[in-house]
Amino acid sequence: MVTAPQFPLMPVSQLRINADRLLADFEALAKIGAQPNGAVSRPALSLEDLEARAWFADQIEEAHLRYRDDDAGNLSGVLPSADATAKSLLIGSHLDGVVNGGHYDGTIGVLAGLEVLRTVREAGLSLPVHLEVVNFTDEEGTWFSLLGSRGMTGRLPVAKLGDKRGQDGAFRAALTRAGIDIARLKNARRDPAGLLGFLELHIEQGNVLNQLGADIGIVRGVVGRTTYQLTFHGERGHSGTTDFYSRKDALQGAAMFITRAHILAHDRHDGSLVNCGKLDVHPGTFNVIPERAQLLVECRHAQEETLLELEGDLLALAQDCAEMYQLRLEAQRLEHMDAGVMDAGVSETIEQACDQLNLLHKGVVSYAGHDAQPMSAFTPTGLIFIPSVGGMSHSPMEFSHWADVVNGANVLLHTTLALATQGR
Amino acid sequence: MVTAPQFPLMPVSQLRINADRLLADFEALAKIGAQPNGAVSRPALSLEDLEARAWFADQIEEAHLRYRDDDAGNLSGVLPSADATAKSLLIGSHLDGVVNGGHYDGTIGVLAGLEVLRTVREAGLSLPVHLEVVNFTDEEGTWFSLLGSRGMTGRLPVAKLGDKRGQDGAFRAALTRAGIDIARLKNARRDPAGLLGFLELHIEQGNVLNQLGADIGIVRGVVGRTTYQLTFHGERGHSGTTDFYSRKDALQGAAMFITRAHILAHDRHDGSLVNCGKLDVHPGTFNVIPERAQLLVECRHAQEETLLELEGDLLALAQDCAEMYQLRLEAQRLEHMDAGVMDAGVSETIEQACDQLNLLHKGVVSYAGHDAQPMSAFTPTGLIFIPSVGGMSHSPMEFSHWADVVNGANVLLHTTLALATQGR
Repeated sequence: MVTAPQFPLMPVSQLRINADRLLADFEALAKIGAQPNGAVSRPALSLEDLEARAWFADQIEEAHLRYRDDDAGNLSGVLPSADATAKSLLIGSHLDGVVNGGHYDGTIGVLAGLEVLRTVREAGLSLPVHLEVVNFTDEEGTWFSLLGSRGMTGRLPVAKLGDKRGQDGAFRAALTRAGIDIARLKNARRDPAGLLGFLELHIEQGNVLNQLGADIGIVRGVVGRTTYQLTFHGERGHSGTTDFYSRKDALQGAAMFITRAHILAHDRHDGSLVNCGKLDVHPGTFNVIPERAQLLVECRHAQEETLLELEGDLLALAQDCAEMYQLRLEAQRLEHMDAGVMDAGVSETIEQACDQLNLLHKGVVSYAGHDAQPMSAFTPTGLIFIPSVGGMSHSPMEFSHWADVVNGANVLLHTTLALATQGR
Repeated sequence: MVTAPQFPLMPVSQLRINADRLLADFEALAKIGAQPNGAVSRPALSLEDLEARAWFADQIEEAHLRYRDDDAGNLSGVLPSADATAKSLLIGSHLDGVVNGGHYDGTIGVLAGLEVLRTVREAGLSLPVHLEVVNFTDEEGTWFSLLGSRGMTGRLPVAKLGDKRGQDGAFRAALTRAGIDIARLKNARRDPAGLLGFLELHIEQGNVLNQLGADIGIVRGVVGRTTYQLTFHGERGHSGTTDFYSRKDALQGAAMFITRAHILAHDRHDGSLVNCGKLDVHPGTFNVIPERAQLLVECRHAQEETLLELEGDLLALAQDCAEMYQLRLEAQRLEHMDAGVMDAGVSETIEQACDQLNLLHKGVVSYAGHDAQPMSAFTPTGLIFIPSVGGMSHSPMEFSHWADVVNGANVLLHTTLALATQGR
């Protein structure tokens, strides 16, 4: 229990996070999973991710916060209120990342959250809510997208985890490394009655804020996302002796789908995006006509209804492409994440914090998934963006100006203080 | 040395191969590399291929032929002429195959050649040429297409073997397993002055003979073939936050090339064929825009000149597709095999053998590469096709009627006898 003076030493409105300490944290973490090309590889539950989690646990201890974890492997540091019956305001993001990714995605949300708690504690503020900085497990979906945040909200399709992408054994081993028991994942669900809300700071990963000339993006909604595995089945045969019209070339069907899917999404469903991220061709040699082409597809839209229409159109297109080349289509819907709507009250509080800090803010839509997405259906949630230079992300070229990171952390601080004061 | 009576016991024109013995060989070999799905996997220099080679060496010994091998791992059985200065008539094909391939491709050419030598020997015929049945190394190109036959003709690009597809270590290990020393490969070259010619019996692997209702195809020419690795370089990025027009999606470029390459070949270069057999996408995850798509392409045409035009058109198309998606193209020409022209005199002899056996024959073009292709530029060469049911090949569905195999072996026998008689 923190013993804090009742009267802060400076006006709360003048409070700022410690930018140097935040930078030191950022630099320490950047070394964990660092690649020679400047990228960072910290896929969820990898040894690098475990190292980052251990580092985070150390910081929690050093900051005199209370350590907490749950059955989904989410790690928290808590700055408790003097009122033991108070609600908790969660602040956080994720320390895991894609392979060969950047240093900002997820990371700055956790580090800024930690810095907010340290700042509040050192200022001797006594708040009527518990503050809790959280690192969610596997946001990126190395194993299962948004595993930690979906687990906390009780929205994890636990039954589907058992046979995930045929990698059950490896997944279980990875969970075990992190001390997570798959049978107990469901116990990670928190009671929303005990929560005041959730705040996440994140890089935009797009170029809209730069184009708008804004310092801060206040996210109105996060796109929904559905992933599919599309398998085109053809017939293998000798590539030289099978004539043009007799070929049942699985790769041609998949290729036609890829070229048309992007155009379909762009032309028919404004604001939608498609990605074909992987394609495996079997048997995969020069002189054999491909008998199987297996494609990973994802599609996104901010309106749930439009997303479903887009999915239907894409499946119909895949069927057309299969028929065009005399192929059989096998479509498997893998994951679906509902579009998320951020809380209007929380967003207004973020706006006021920006105004107070003289930062130009704009309302935006997030085309990337975030822990704030499942959380938004569970507790009043706000999502704060800072600009990404060039809009690059999931890449070693991901970069944000440090001043923007500091601005974001200060918006997070003052949103936290305002919500906590309004709180309970 | 075989001691044979001077007068055969039956008229030479009545001589036939022993179909039962050929079938027993076929069935014995079908077990080596057999897969549960009915396919056979005997990639060159694999343990299965080595087992097939050992089996073949046993048959050579049992047939009282003289064993011979060379520095490219080609294995032969020789039925020597009484005239030690005689030329050699080579007969053969290959026992290696693609993974999950059929039982006829290559195999029947070697087995029928072996059976021809046994038949000649048992008939007590004394020929003025040495007969030599040969199993060529790696016809299919598991490591290097037509390695054995190109090695024998001195047309192996030995300098290129060292860095083959980045698999030098594995290739050397495989060669070593078969007792082949990469530094000595060039010594496999035979002196063409010592050769009378080369005969190969093979399944058609296409459907033309069935359509023509022919028993035997007499191949006029074998298509030339060039293989490329085309790499489309884009820019990785977050699949949700990079807008439609900013994407530099390597997979979209490759996909556009695939769909158009087949149409280009078909529309602009009559008789040409293209195959895109493999495509690797990097990094290969749902939520990252592909930064690299690496495609294996091959193209074929019976006229060398048209093949070169087709290659130029395909490269220009690949460049267009790259520019369309703001990508950079890297094109690497991997292998080229000249179109082969079969010897008119040998082909006429095959025709006469068919007539003598009352078999309907047609002149055809081979769209598949064969050992006869490099051999044709080296020594007078003939290539005999038998029908493939449904035209299927490189597949467990590859099938030829046994009667056609026997017909082919008898055509091989009588072509051999006629050439040997004309010979020296």
